[in-house]
Amino acid sequence: MNANTIQITFPDGAVRSYPAGVTGLDIARSISEGLAREVLAVKVNDEVWDATRPIEQDAHIRLLTWKDPEGKATFWHSSAHLMAEALETMFPGVKFGVGPAIEQGFYYDVDLGGRQLTEADIRALEQKMTELAQRKATYVRKPVAKAEAIAYFREKGDPYKLELLEDLPDGQITFYTQGNFTDLCRGPHIPHTGFIKAVKLTNIAGAYWRGDEHNPMLTRIYGISFPSRKELDEYLHWLEEAKKRDHRKLGRELELFTFSEQVGMGLPLWLPKGTIIREQLQAFLHQVQVEQGYQFVVTPHIANKNLYVTSGHYEKYGESSFQPMKTPQPGEEFMLKPMNCPHHIEIYRSAPRSYRDLPIRIAEFGTVYRYEQSGELHGLTRVRGFTQDDAHLFCRPDQVKQEFEKVIDLVLYVLNTLHFKDFVAQISLRDQHDHSKYIGSEESWQQAEQAIVDAVQEKQLPAVVEYGEAAFYGPKLDFMVRDALGRKWQLGTIQVDYNLPERFQLEYVGADNQKHRPVMIHRAPFGSLERFVALLIEHCAGNFPLWLAPLQAIVLPITDKVLDYAHELVAEGKKAGLRITLDERNEKIGKKIRDAETQKIPYMWIVGEKEMQQHHIALRKHMKGDIGNLPVADVISKLQTEIAEKYFEL
Amino acid sequence: MNANTIQITFPDGAVRSYPAGVTGLDIARSISEGLAREVLAVKVNDEVWDATRPIEQDAHIRLLTWKDPEGKATFWHSSAHLMAEALETMFPGVKFGVGPAIEQGFYYDVDLGGRQLTEADIRALEQKMTELAQRKATYVRKPVAKAEAIAYFREKGDPYKLELLEDLPDGQITFYTQGNFTDLCRGPHIPHTGFIKAVKLTNIAGAYWRGDEHNPMLTRIYGISFPSRKELDEYLHWLEEAKKRDHRKLGRELELFTFSEQVGMGLPLWLPKGTIIREQLQAFLHQVQVEQGYQFVVTPHIANKNLYVTSGHYEKYGESSFQPMKTPQPGEEFMLKPMNCPHHIEIYRSAPRSYRDLPIRIAEFGTVYRYEQSGELHGLTRVRGFTQDDAHLFCRPDQVKQEFEKVIDLVLYVLNTLHFKDFVAQISLRDQHDHSKYIGSEESWQQAEQAIVDAVQEKQLPAVVEYGEAAFYGPKLDFMVRDALGRKWQLGTIQVDYNLPERFQLEYVGADNQKHRPVMIHRAPFGSLERFVALLIEHCAGNFPLWLAPLQAIVLPITDKVLDYAHELVAEGKKAGLRITLDERNEKIGKKIRDAETQKIPYMWIVGEKEMQQHHIALRKHMKGDIGNLPVADVISKLQTEIAEKYFEL
Repeated sequence: MNANTIQITFPDGAVRSYPAGVTGLDIARSISEGLAREVLAVKVNDEVWDATRPIEQDAHIRLLTWKDPEGKATFWHSSAHLMAEALETMFPGVKFGVGPAIEQGFYYDVDLGGRQLTEADIRALEQKMTELAQRKATYVRKPVAKAEAIAYFREKGDPYKLELLEDLPDGQITFYTQGNFTDLCRGPHIPHTGFIKAVKLTNIAGAYWRGDEHNPMLTRIYGISFPSRKELDEYLHWLEEAKKRDHRKLGRELELFTFSEQVGMGLPLWLPKGTIIREQLQAFLHQVQVEQGYQFVVTPHIANKNLYVTSGHYEKYGESSFQPMKTPQPGEEFMLKPMNCPHHIEIYRSAPRSYRDLPIRIAEFGTVYRYEQSGELHGLTRVRGFTQDDAHLFCRPDQVKQEFEKVIDLVLYVLNTLHFKDFVAQISLRDQHDHSKYIGSEESWQQAEQAIVDAVQEKQLPAVVEYGEAAFYGPKLDFMVRDALGRKWQLGTIQVDYNLPERFQLEYVGADNQKHRPVMIHRAPFGSLERFVALLIEHCAGNFPLWLAPLQAIVLPITDKVLDYAHELVAEGKKAGLRITLDERNEKIGKKIRDAETQKIPYMWIVGEKEMQQHHIALRKHMKGDIGNLPVADVISKLQTEIAEKYFEL
Repeated sequence: MNANTIQITFPDGAVRSYPAGVTGLDIARSISEGLAREVLAVKVNDEVWDATRPIEQDAHIRLLTWKDPEGKATFWHSSAHLMAEALETMFPGVKFGVGPAIEQGFYYDVDLGGRQLTEADIRALEQKMTELAQRKATYVRKPVAKAEAIAYFREKGDPYKLELLEDLPDGQITFYTQGNFTDLCRGPHIPHTGFIKAVKLTNIAGAYWRGDEHNPMLTRIYGISFPSRKELDEYLHWLEEAKKRDHRKLGRELELFTFSEQVGMGLPLWLPKGTIIREQLQAFLHQVQVEQGYQFVVTPHIANKNLYVTSGHYEKYGESSFQPMKTPQPGEEFMLKPMNCPHHIEIYRSAPRSYRDLPIRIAEFGTVYRYEQSGELHGLTRVRGFTQDDAHLFCRPDQVKQEFEKVIDLVLYVLNTLHFKDFVAQISLRDQHDHSKYIGSEESWQQAEQAIVDAVQEKQLPAVVEYGEAAFYGPKLDFMVRDALGRKWQLGTIQVDYNLPERFQLEYVGADNQKHRPVMIHRAPFGSLERFVALLIEHCAGNFPLWLAPLQAIVLPITDKVLDYAHELVAEGKKAGLRITLDERNEKIGKKIRDAETQKIPYMWIVGEKEMQQHHIALRKHMKGDIGNLPVADVISKLQTEIAEKYFEL
């Protein structure tokens, strides 16, 4: 074989010979010009490269386009560089921090010397980016020596890049240049700016340099870009929809929850309507778990600090969270519980346990408190107090896999009932290169990690493995769920724990009459009720399934003449267990219907004189319109069935 | 009319003339010798006097015997003096603190110079008291000048009595002497020691002099005495029954709750069985309140300290309770909530309110934390964290009385369902002589006090008025309930509050389009779930009504041959919503029945081959025995009916 020829293996296993130094773009062109016009980057042996970078050795490759997540990421990263170029054109002397791709688009942190960007600046910046893109400037990669790189940015006067350079080893530094802009960058990038056909800058925020509040505050400009105008329009439509569904907005409009500065940031106050949703979800989870042999307990929200020193939670949360509180008893300190585990362990320890008693499944809707940074608080998704749908399973080592599988079944049942069909099971294992940050023995970890991997295989779940994402006390399995807008949420955590049983010296008496150590499984199908309700609100856009709707039906009398009949219907509905009310305002029926639609009440019971005479209801469904004129008993039975079946329609 | 004759009015209104200087005993003798033998004291114009003290003026009188609470109190107070005399005989040099009558008997705080009393000492002391009593020594009252009193106790060397004397005004000091013992005492006393026929010393405890931990620790000797041996025996039997019903004992035996030193004293951990009782009670209260127009909310267990400074709770609880906790944010402090009111107020404040919206009834099972002194902690009745069945009603001033009455109806319904038939409504008003310790205007207090008095009258409740027992922020109504053993418990608190609406500047827009201030009513039918469950356990001796029983039925197979049938029955029972289990141990049926009785499981489903062939159950009821051989469907329906009706039998 010619020394200048290399073997390229394609994803489908096909192998073709190319001259050494061939680029991804060359390979694409060798297949079709159409493909070449779409290639954004190329994956070479699991590393993403510029499509224009020469390949000198045999390699497995995959050509990346807009359809691939890595293709999009490269596209957005290049767009960040394009934005930087536009910024430098518009605001000479601007200094640059970092500018990565993110899940939806990109950002760049910049130092504008105190200048506040206006709406007009942003529109002009978008315009400038589009202009520059049209030049089809190529992204040119250039390895540079560290000294040369330092000289460049010292000359340019960019302190942030110089600081970044300090941490980089000589020999691994590359510059990327497109048009008049050069950046310190590992790459990769798309072939040229011409791919970027549509740009939208979406947000401006403050961001401390390197996330440290002692550093200067930079301006973070968020944007997103697309290979066509049409895709941008679709995205903007999606964004609009996401804004409409924002749980903070709907939570306010539908009177589900509120916050009070007097009580404290991040501490939600559940209003009556939100409380109903919460109660219904809780009742559902309670029933499902009791059926699965869980036993519910109630434990206090505080404990002596020593409990958390023993558990290790003080070490983990102590300094950065709500601080211990003193009491009139000198030396005594109590803490808010950051987790329920130690309390459930104390319940396990309250009686001698035998191998015949295991597994013991202790469940609680336990409210825990952690002091999140105020900048990280966000509606119900990041709070300082939240209620976990928590449980701890104490089992024999030989029961771990089976119990783990049962928990997976439970989580799947719960997600399915709530209409979350699209999920991936994420197996979080230790950092492969650094085991030092985890508590517990090597052997325990290996056992625990294997139990999870085996259970997931047995259940044939779609799964990904993430190294380094394990909790400090054990590996875990998370269900990464996509909502109706395709956004990813983490739900349904299950963790195996060989560590706390050791710390608390937990025991049971085995069949051999000897003392043994149980294994713990931590699990929470929702994670927290707060976070789950936030997700649910955004998932169904506030149009809750009937069994969860705070108000399930409203009686809308057309005239005052049927008011008595309307009251009678409310009474009948309540007797049948429905959450129902009456709109007895002196308003036109059209207005009453519009208001009920705004409140997203699932069913409108419209009644006029005809309906009264027939003991009927003109039934109308939210967002669907008229269903028909039905006998009252039929309507009630229809709604009862829908509730009992937990019917869910998006 | 002769100047030496006075007019004595009897309780029935009859008036008779007696010579001035007549005693209660003389009057009794003038009616019958039998009555004279029973008279312990006499009530003269609302003041209790010695039966031997001369009456010099016209008076209304009532002769007091053992049947009257004041008669018993006098009897026990005299018994305390008798015990003091016996102590002085046995331990010369003993020093005396105070020795009052209490609800059940009496105590005396004594300084024995460090001597610990043994069981033998106590029995000897009882013996000595009985001996001294038989001498029929009269209790002699003698007014003394302060100087004379001081001289007496200085001579005797009794520092505690000297300290008590310091606070007494000259001219109002009396001594009482019986046999060889003289005490500083306001009286009154029974005529002579001969009335005391039976004595039981019940307990020894430490008690700081004047309740102040900086003072010396005295020995408190508790006792009780009776006018006959038979009554003592009845009392001892009652005491035995009370011990059997002690909720701490039953809580442990029935696995309802536990405490952990690691978590902290006074912080109950509800075990699975106790949690079921708690959940059922909570569900019952939830339903009743929703039907009454209450809206449930969920609020955090902490708030910024400033909230409690505004509410006044910091002033009340701040120093003596769990201390504020710091956060990583300098200057910020949070506190555990000692009450739910401020959080509910923030919910009221979260939206503008109109007169049409009122009353707004905000309910929550809110867990609050208060640092009780460790010596005061007692099972579930005195704890450091407890869940109130709390609600706050925000109403217009014209709605107060009506809302108050509705709350009374709710409390009565709840108490009746739980079979508490014997209660008194205690109206707690301000101290008549000192209004300074209450927050709020004179006018508000008068309005609030009147509203309570009116509502109680309207409902025709048996009531007592207690001055000085109001909360610092408003008057209240408590239901003082007697349990199956006749002991008094405070339940069902309702409070009117004009104060917090003022402090938080609460408002609603009236029909006049002007801003007005709402009135708050605080109320909790149970008070706290913890305390109520403790009471319920003692009330029903752990034999819970079926709807509350943690385990409602147990299937007891007679032989292994019917095990499949037994499993089938458990499945059928569960399907019917019953909490049911199976005793599949290889034990004799007699043993299985005994164990089920010990666990106080309401129903035993005993099944042998005959029952299996018939698809029947030999039904047995806890403490009642066999009910009969019944078809399975009949048994299930019987139990379901009993649950639905919340049947309660003591």
